[in-house]
Amino acid sequence: MTKTPLNTDNIIQRVLDKDIRAAGRLMRWVDDDLDKVKPLLAQLFEHTGHARIIGITGNPGAGKSTLVNQLIKELRQRGKTVGCIAVDPTSPFSGGAILGDRVRMQQHALDSGVFIRSVATRGNLGGISRSTPAIVHILDAMKFDVILIETVGVGQDEVDIVRLADTSVVLNVPGLGDDIQASKAGILEIADLLVINKADRDGMQRLRRELRTMIELGDFEENDWKPPVIETIATSSQGIDNLADAIFKHLEWLDTHQDQKHEVELERHHHYIGLVAMGEIERIVQHERASERWSEQLEKVRTREISPYEAAQTLLSYIIEAKR
Amino acid sequence: MTKTPLNTDNIIQRVLDKDIRAAGRLMRWVDDDLDKVKPLLAQLFEHTGHARIIGITGNPGAGKSTLVNQLIKELRQRGKTVGCIAVDPTSPFSGGAILGDRVRMQQHALDSGVFIRSVATRGNLGGISRSTPAIVHILDAMKFDVILIETVGVGQDEVDIVRLADTSVVLNVPGLGDDIQASKAGILEIADLLVINKADRDGMQRLRRELRTMIELGDFEENDWKPPVIETIATSSQGIDNLADAIFKHLEWLDTHQDQKHEVELERHHHYIGLVAMGEIERIVQHERASERWSEQLEKVRTREISPYEAAQTLLSYIIEAKR
Repeated sequence: MTKTPLNTDNIIQRVLDKDIRAAGRLMRWVDDDLDKVKPLLAQLFEHTGHARIIGITGNPGAGKSTLVNQLIKELRQRGKTVGCIAVDPTSPFSGGAILGDRVRMQQHALDSGVFIRSVATRGNLGGISRSTPAIVHILDAMKFDVILIETVGVGQDEVDIVRLADTSVVLNVPGLGDDIQASKAGILEIADLLVINKADRDGMQRLRRELRTMIELGDFEENDWKPPVIETIATSSQGIDNLADAIFKHLEWLDTHQDQKHEVELERHHHYIGLVAMGEIERIVQHERASERWSEQLEKVRTREISPYEAAQTLLSYIIEAKR
Repeated sequence: MTKTPLNTDNIIQRVLDKDIRAAGRLMRWVDDDLDKVKPLLAQLFEHTGHARIIGITGNPGAGKSTLVNQLIKELRQRGKTVGCIAVDPTSPFSGGAILGDRVRMQQHALDSGVFIRSVATRGNLGGISRSTPAIVHILDAMKFDVILIETVGVGQDEVDIVRLADTSVVLNVPGLGDDIQASKAGILEIADLLVINKADRDGMQRLRRELRTMIELGDFEENDWKPPVIETIATSSQGIDNLADAIFKHLEWLDTHQDQKHEVELERHHHYIGLVAMGEIERIVQHERASERWSEQLEKVRTREISPYEAAQTLLSYIIEAKR
């Protein structure tokens, strides 16, 4: 029995029916041009809200992919279905993928309770952040229990991912240089759970001491969640059960703190709505890039006849003209 | 003799007179609220265009700070004045600074031909990119010959920095894991010069071979600039003279390829103007965040009564209303 081909009329129902191929197609449409599929995503949105979203971040070399892989196994053993989004750090430049990761993840390929998707970060302002929430919505509407978002942790991308997640896990590894250690300074602002991966390495004691001191000195109120420190050796799956326990403990904590939970949700929606609105404006700006009148403005900036600030006002007037 | 206190009427003239304190003050104003100082920056802009801008990027642990430090010394020996912008990777989370870097850089503190400034990356959409160009403009208007921009290289921030620079230098180190190696895939799209720092480490030969193969296989036309590979050991200043030579060679190449140079400049201005315009829109959105009518919209999204895409249209109508 062959199904009718996928089209914009049937794809949403198919996604809601957990059709993997339909989901893959819709995600590709999101990657290609989010703006075009907004009406479809709008239909899907009312079916979201089931999944718990876990963000996993850490510096390159922290062993994120291996840990995510093991965590998927652990969650499956606990009877949870898992959607996984691997945000691909090579893509800002090349559009290429970290093939190794994909191959490694294919060991789950035959398990229909697991869906893995790479997201390219290529693109402009808020590129990563705009397509990732949409893909979360798709997985959520498919009723996956847990959605893991894996991303490399440096800079703005990391902050954006944290905004998406119910629970944020930050990976650390022992024995890296001070350059890397220093960047831990703000970790407490984003981490709900701290993981020391590769915990059999030299420097583990020191790193654990540093993280615990940081938490001790942290600005926590009595009712706040205090990030636990979990030791793992992902390559041999050690500590992964503890990590899963800690994740569920944090999710339960959220459920018993509804005010905080709602505030986080409102902030998340506000952020995404802002990105969608900005995306529409960006599209107008990109369209304008090719226009004669804008080329003339740019040339005047190049020759210092006008400043970029004057040109920005002109650009804003074009935007308003286009949206009227 | 005491000068009159700095104010908005005299600060630009003081900056043009190379008054370090005035420049520091103006940069602080930029960090605090770019939008407020736009009229001042607009006055300054016509005095820019002298400096050559060099971007230096690489993964955490690549030795960027040390190399930048050595490069400053080398450029000073060649009679160039140097402005340096260290984009601070800790700041998205904490606003904190990598103190070590700042201390290290203070060895240039008594040299008036060097000006070093850390830029926080804290902030929202395009946070890093919006204040960094403004600070480049200030240093440029002070007639620094070379402006170095140092940033950690993963994700969007890196791409934005490359957009600012005449010459982009990407640091690599031998012997890192495949996880990191993989992220080199798109390096050729952003690097004008490739540096192998810590060239005395194991794995140097392999890394050099990989980079050279990448360049061989690269999609270069006959007239294109092909990135050279330069080996350095920044801690003992080895290879820094070669690096400086290569930088000037690339700058000369740009000067003899005016079409490409102009295209790069136009793209740079377009990008910055876009960020300034977006910043103004973002300010309207943030202001709206506190409004009653927007809270109601957000709550409707939270309860899945409306989709984020409908809410985005409402937000756009608020933006247009505010700009009218």
